Amino acid sequence: MASLSCSVEELAPLLGPNTTTAAAAADYICGQFSAVSNKFADATHAIDSTYLLFSAYLVFAMQLGFAMLCAGSVRAKNTMNIMLTNVLDAAAGGIFYYLFGFAFAFGGPSNGFIGHHYFGMKEIPSPDFDYSMFLYQWAFAIAAAGITSGSIAERTKFVAYLIYSSFLTGFVYPVVSHWFWSADGWASANNKKNLLFGSGVIDFAGSGVVHMVGGIAGLYGALIEGPRIGRFDHEGRAVALRGHSASLVVLGTFLLWFGWYGFNPGSFFTILNPYKSGYYYGQWSAVGRTAVTTTLAGCTAALTTLFVKRILSGHWNVLDVCNGLLAGFAAITSGCSVVDPWAALICGFVAALVLIGCNKLAEKVKYDDPLEAAQLHGGCGAWGVISSTIR
Amino acid sequence: MASLSCSVEELAPLLGPNTTTAAAAADYICGQFSAVSNKFADATHAIDSTYLLFSAYLVFAMQLGFAMLCAGSVRAKNTMNIMLTNVLDAAAGGIFYYLFGFAFAFGGPSNGFIGHHYFGMKEIPSPDFDYSMFLYQWAFAIAAAGITSGSIAERTKFVAYLIYSSFLTGFVYPVVSHWFWSADGWASANNKKNLLFGSGVIDFAGSGVVHMVGGIAGLYGALIEGPRIGRFDHEGRAVALRGHSASLVVLGTFLLWFGWYGFNPGSFFTILNPYKSGYYYGQWSAVGRTAVTTTLAGCTAALTTLFVKRILSGHWNVLDVCNGLLAGFAAITSGCSVVDPWAALICGFVAALVLIGCNKLAEKVKYDDPLEAAQLHGGCGAWGVISSTIR
Amino acid sequence: MASLSCSVEELAPLLGPNTTTAAAAADYICGQFSAVSNKFADATHAIDSTYLLFSAYLVFAMQLGFAMLCAGSVRAKNTMNIMLTNVLDAAAGGIFYYLFGFAFAFGGPSNGFIGHHYFGMKEIPSPDFDYSMFLYQWAFAIAAAGITSGSIAERTKFVAYLIYSSFLTGFVYPVVSHWFWSADGWASANNKKNLLFGSGVIDFAGSGVVHMVGGIAGLYGALIEGPRIGRFDHEGRAVALRGHSASLVVLGTFLLWFGWYGFNPGSFFTILNPYKSGYYYGQWSAVGRTAVTTTLAGCTAALTTLFVKRILSGHWNVLDVCNGLLAGFAAITSGCSVVDPWAALICGFVAALVLIGCNKLAEKVKYDDPLEAAQLHGGCGAWGVISSTIR
Repeated sequence: MASLSCSVEELAPLLGPNTTTAAAAADYICGQFSAVSNKFADATHAIDSTYLLFSAYLVFAMQLGFAMLCAGSVRAKNTMNIMLTNVLDAAAGGIFYYLFGFAFAFGGPSNGFIGHHYFGMKEIPSPDFDYSMFLYQWAFAIAAAGITSGSIAERTKFVAYLIYSSFLTGFVYPVVSHWFWSADGWASANNKKNLLFGSGVIDFAGSGVVHMVGGIAGLYGALIEGPRIGRFDHEGRAVALRGHSASLVVLGTFLLWFGWYGFNPGSFFTILNPYKSGYYYGQWSAVGRTAVTTTLAGCTAALTTLFVKRILSGHWNVLDVCNGLLAGFAAITSGCSVVDPWAALICGFVAALVLIGCNKLAEKVKYDDPLEAAQLHGGCGAWGVISSTIR
Repeated sequence: MASLSCSVEELAPLLGPNTTTAAAAADYICGQFSAVSNKFADATHAIDSTYLLFSAYLVFAMQLGFAMLCAGSVRAKNTMNIMLTNVLDAAAGGIFYYLFGFAFAFGGPSNGFIGHHYFGMKEIPSPDFDYSMFLYQWAFAIAAAGITSGSIAERTKFVAYLIYSSFLTGFVYPVVSHWFWSADGWASANNKKNLLFGSGVIDFAGSGVVHMVGGIAGLYGALIEGPRIGRFDHEGRAVALRGHSASLVVLGTFLLWFGWYGFNPGSFFTILNPYKSGYYYGQWSAVGRTAVTTTLAGCTAALTTLFVKRILSGHWNVLDVCNGLLAGFAAITSGCSVVDPWAALICGFVAALVLIGCNKLAEKVKYDDPLEAAQLHGGCGAWGVISSTIR
Repeated sequence: MASLSCSVEELAPLLGPNTTTAAAAADYICGQFSAVSNKFADATHAIDSTYLLFSAYLVFAMQLGFAMLCAGSVRAKNTMNIMLTNVLDAAAGGIFYYLFGFAFAFGGPSNGFIGHHYFGMKEIPSPDFDYSMFLYQWAFAIAAAGITSGSIAERTKFVAYLIYSSFLTGFVYPVVSHWFWSADGWASANNKKNLLFGSGVIDFAGSGVVHMVGGIAGLYGALIEGPRIGRFDHEGRAVALRGHSASLVVLGTFLLWFGWYGFNPGSFFTILNPYKSGYYYGQWSAVGRTAVTTTLAGCTAALTTLFVKRILSGHWNVLDVCNGLLAGFAAITSGCSVVDPWAALICGFVAALVLIGCNKLAEKVKYDDPLEAAQLHGGCGAWGVISSTIR
């Protein structure tokens, strides 16, 4: 009763003893149902594409968020320079992800380490990948670069950054995403054979693939470059180098929050997917739950960071709330699609503690990261992957 | 002909005299149509969820708007403090609305005054409420808090504000929205028995429930706190305390405008609702008309405010246009779904006059509200509810 | 097999020799299919309206972009004034496009030069135009005005600008869009008779209709007003008058990029349009490809501008990247729906050269345009129309 599968063989005998006419009648009726099926396929394409494209636009809006967050977090004199890197992450990322990145990431059939089809979008669209998927994945790739730029702000030569960013968007990030998200990837949960840990790694929207990659790349960059001049005094004590605009930091944080609704719920790629046809609970509900768990993890982490830092430092600070929010989002990104709302509170709570721990550690080892980007995305992304695996 | 209601009892006799086979044939065919019905139900869920979720994201974007509006409207030294309250409205609001707020607002079956189901999202999703509805309503709840913060800016202790905001989002706003929007609410137009004024109050998207509540809460707060130091000179004359950034004010206003397209048209919750199947005019048109009336009311109020203020003060002022816009939006929010475009012009025109009247009154009574939030949302929200009821 | 066209005449004879019952059975079954068709029509309206409305919201977000771009590009003292013009473009544009603009543009049946129906939205909605179409076209109209304001910034009296902007949004832009986009327009590709060049002009999303119109209007305005005081020294050498905030320029540019995803892909108006029912490739793919070509043209133009300007001037400049991006977008707007991704790279590359050429020319003729708006939108828009016609 549930599936739309009109069969001439089944229907014809029921329509009367005259085999020829009955077969023709069955053929006519089933033909109509077949056309109905096709129309549903069309509608599904349109709905899912609308869903995926607008999600991609939201993910793109995260670049605005990174840019404003960076602009506000650096000193006024360095604004031009960091703005330039942010715009170029997106622009150079567009070209490199088009030429190589998407191919390395999703160009199957391939080996488990790197893809090798679809260079320059050749053979796209195909039944597997439409243009909208390319756009969505590109927006993810430049987000990884956006994370990185914060860690090495205020002390990086532009040309060095451009090479670094292009390499990240065009090669490193695509290769890692191939490992985890391509059906052929050695760590993918969709890999049919040779499954890692017997299950593959579950990283729904990229706590590991995007945030840890961006965070670790930022960590390396920051270690290579060393701290900013004046970041530690001659006795080695940390000196706060305050950003020049809290308004821009808040704007950036809110824009990232806004964009995360494309990042996490959008990672389903489709929304018209009934888990049982005709029932109120389907992928649309899972998508909504993902938006809710994302929200709650961020909110909890924000409040936790605010209060714990208040106890540690003695004053209320808007930047703590912003960093806390992002820490919660980075952590829930991995498990957002499978956890219940109450579990999202726990995930966010722990993420805040991880962030604060990373902060302490960074101060100890004289590590400098103007936006706490490596600590936030690296540390909390790691916690996210671990928590969604333990689950 | 219109409804999809294949009946075996009706079809079987038409398919021939052999009752057994004919019944089987009818059963087969009607079974297919039943599967088609289920598929339409799935598609409807997916379309409506996409519509509601992206509307919720837009409503959330209003928090960016409130934050930027507040940041630009206060003096530079107070930016950090007001930013903190704005981010916390959203974060603390998320936790409290999850724990209590949604339950108080929509937790039916209940009495007319307060709901008492769905605490901590228990039993959600249900056929009545999916996750997307929670997200949408949460975005509304934090908007009410966002309105309030503007009225008491530049003179509120942070902890006091945090308690005030949490109480508003977790209790006051939910209870009021229960009265008007829950099917059990004592003032709801959907309440079957004991209907207020014989009709209940019609407040489509919350001129009263959101804007008046936020405005009145802000008014109380401002009255308790008294005016800012320096707001009135020792002879009691008003002294303009100008905000530090017109750019941020305009950014905030435009972001609120952008978000209002989620707030007003989104309040239909669904878009796939034919008023007559197969006809070009359906809920999709009503949704579009709502977007148009919202736009026109805001535009009219903006121009009216600009010109009237020009006559009164002698100069053109961008802040007048911004406040006028928001006044028009606050007023049309109640009747946006039912008025014609020409009527939206009138609604916006009067809203501008109401705003200007409130401004005059506020100056007379030495009432201080940095963003005119109470005057704008309170006064024009009230005008909105009255106008949509008179209609 | 493909179309949903159950015919009683065709089906009845197949259902058995008893003509009366067979006809009734066929009528019953075809009636059900007819209801299915109606439900598909409803779903199509809902999906396409969702698509068009959210695209319209994105186009509206371009006003935020223009406002921030303008705010950042002028000197601090002129911020208030330019902000005022930006908000009024939208507000006055709303009223005038409602009263006259839409009627002049799309009020067919009409002559080839100007439409004359639908004044004040009379007779809307109709089967041809729903409210969502009005909203979408209004957002386009105010974008044309937004382009213009940049060219005459920092030296225009407010009242003069208000008249100029209202006339542009209410008359000039609508008339031009009638020529190219109305089915009756003398230059429209949809005009059945008397077709220009035998094909009409193809300008998919408005490189000519929006960007050239805005650019040329800006050029005229700038020529009438002359350069800003201090723009050229007494020996006629250009003096750079730097804007006061690169952060706002980048924010504005990114917001325009974000909004362009409504502008270009949205210009299909619908997304549920199978090119062959049941096949994976349909209008949803064309929409996605349009988003991709838009992205790639902008990215290429940004990089090209950055590097060529680096060679010419000796330093890296974030404003060059921003202008380059917008030049690429303005150029691809015309052909975005029909070119392949690789061709978008070429389109963007040439657009960057056109922009740089226009810059050089402007300096030669002592023409002053604070945002390079006329050069960028005028010049690159022209290149866009030419390139999509040559194709």
